[in-house]
Amino acid sequence: MRESEIIDLFLKHLRKQGDLPLGDDAGAIRLGDEWLVATNDMLVRKTDVPDIMTPEQVGFKAVTMNVSDVAAMGAMPIGFLFSLGVPPDVGRDYLEGVARGIGKALEFYYTPVLSADTNEADDLIIDGIALGVTGRLLTRSGARPGELVCVTGDLGRALAGYLVWKNKLDISKKVRKALYEKFLEPKAKVSEGIKLSEIANSAIDVSDGLARELNLLARRSGVRIELSSESLPIREEVFEVAELLGKDPVELALSSGEEFELVFTVEPEKASCLEFDFSVVGKVEKGSGVYLDGEPLPHLGWEHFSHENF
Amino acid sequence: MRESEIIDLFLKHLRKQGDLPLGDDAGAIRLGDEWLVATNDMLVRKTDVPDIMTPEQVGFKAVTMNVSDVAAMGAMPIGFLFSLGVPPDVGRDYLEGVARGIGKALEFYYTPVLSADTNEADDLIIDGIALGVTGRLLTRSGARPGELVCVTGDLGRALAGYLVWKNKLDISKKVRKALYEKFLEPKAKVSEGIKLSEIANSAIDVSDGLARELNLLARRSGVRIELSSESLPIREEVFEVAELLGKDPVELALSSGEEFELVFTVEPEKASCLEFDFSVVGKVEKGSGVYLDGEPLPHLGWEHFSHENF
Repeated sequence: MRESEIIDLFLKHLRKQGDLPLGDDAGAIRLGDEWLVATNDMLVRKTDVPDIMTPEQVGFKAVTMNVSDVAAMGAMPIGFLFSLGVPPDVGRDYLEGVARGIGKALEFYYTPVLSADTNEADDLIIDGIALGVTGRLLTRSGARPGELVCVTGDLGRALAGYLVWKNKLDISKKVRKALYEKFLEPKAKVSEGIKLSEIANSAIDVSDGLARELNLLARRSGVRIELSSESLPIREEVFEVAELLGKDPVELALSSGEEFELVFTVEPEKASCLEFDFSVVGKVEKGSGVYLDGEPLPHLGWEHFSHENF
Repeated sequence: MRESEIIDLFLKHLRKQGDLPLGDDAGAIRLGDEWLVATNDMLVRKTDVPDIMTPEQVGFKAVTMNVSDVAAMGAMPIGFLFSLGVPPDVGRDYLEGVARGIGKALEFYYTPVLSADTNEADDLIIDGIALGVTGRLLTRSGARPGELVCVTGDLGRALAGYLVWKNKLDISKKVRKALYEKFLEPKAKVSEGIKLSEIANSAIDVSDGLARELNLLARRSGVRIELSSESLPIREEVFEVAELLGKDPVELALSSGEEFELVFTVEPEKASCLEFDFSVVGKVEKGSGVYLDGEPLPHLGWEHFSHENF
């Protein structure tokens, strides 16, 4: 069965949902004046971990991918939980590396571990869970015509790094370092998410590529999104890899997943209140669909190390 | 590596913990005037699921084992999350059964699902996460000399049912039904846990057998626990299986895991305030260790379908 079929199957039987229906970066329930946000994401070594990733990077990423979903809801992470599935062939050194990576990530994100569980399994599995709180929730359905579409940081390095590794590309050490930093050690945009919770009207994190995230945002908000390729924040290292492989750098940037940048929409007059690094990449309009320089944008996505969240 | 070694390895690197250190049924953090309780427990088909269990029972149990940990903290469940690992050989019907079981359990426990995630994996895995809230937290370290040791429901049917199945015992349909009800469809004691939060001073759920839970409780509370074998709530069906197998029914009751009954300690004068079914099985004294009819109790535990929570 395809993952989307499995999701449909479960949704049919899960009638009791939180105060925010399933389908956002995280679930949410009201707790007094605040929203409690909760999300989980399972990392499976066979499908999610390229072989050059160190165990420490694996542990760090298991935290980042969950904290990023909390950040995308505009929430401050308040706790992390994880379950480990450990196969017999994974030794002490590898596990200690994973432990060190999780520990480092929790200190990096100022987040305590609340509970953990370990079991025998056939493959190394880290199921991470992050909890967060926010006074104002950012969802995928809050974008309104007239707003700017913005993105933190830059896009494309994760996929470019993956392509360098997969194709054993001969590139300079400096370029490789810049790409691998994003490919192997991505960071969630926590402080940006907290600031956005007061100012933005919708947000989503880039887990499966900007094109896919914007399609979700447009569909769930019931709006049309116009993107300008010239305004996409693409670093020169991505252009270099694109050229080596005869690919379009814009396509790389739009389909690069696990970037963990935040895409958000904000009223133009409020954008100037944001004091972190971001780029305006488009605007929200009436209608439906996502358009790049006026043309419909295909559903590009990063299938290689994909996973579904519903 | 043994699970206890893996746990030690991780604890070494996880310095940032919640407001309640790791080692209870669930983790907890303060959220305003309340405690937010969070726990996770991974169910792996290969090690946790006997082959007579229906997929619906598997789904229900994945919820129960987590909700039970929330109940043991005296908290009301407010949300459930899960990650599925799905191997290629698990078909649509099986998954739909699991979905139905999770859905039924969430309705049974009045708990919404907040987030879910699905991935390819080598074995069927359901990692469940339950969240709860309480004004007063019940921990494993709150038992004080002079209190009564009590347990909800009855003990031993889960292990007796397992032994009936494993040894293909020839018993009456009625006895089998009574045992399998607890072996295959255990229920968490949610309303009892909520009532206990106001009255009891410590609690733990019976995941790995009463003997093991009481040893944990005694050690973490720094007390001695005296048990009386005559007062243990053991149903006649357990006596019947014990006799067929030439085993001691008290030993069965003490080592039977995944019972999901709540063990708690309470001041004698407050025990009468509790209006649900429970048995006084012993008392808390100064000292250390657990004693049964005056003799030290060995560390009996249910190893068959074991999993470690830390």
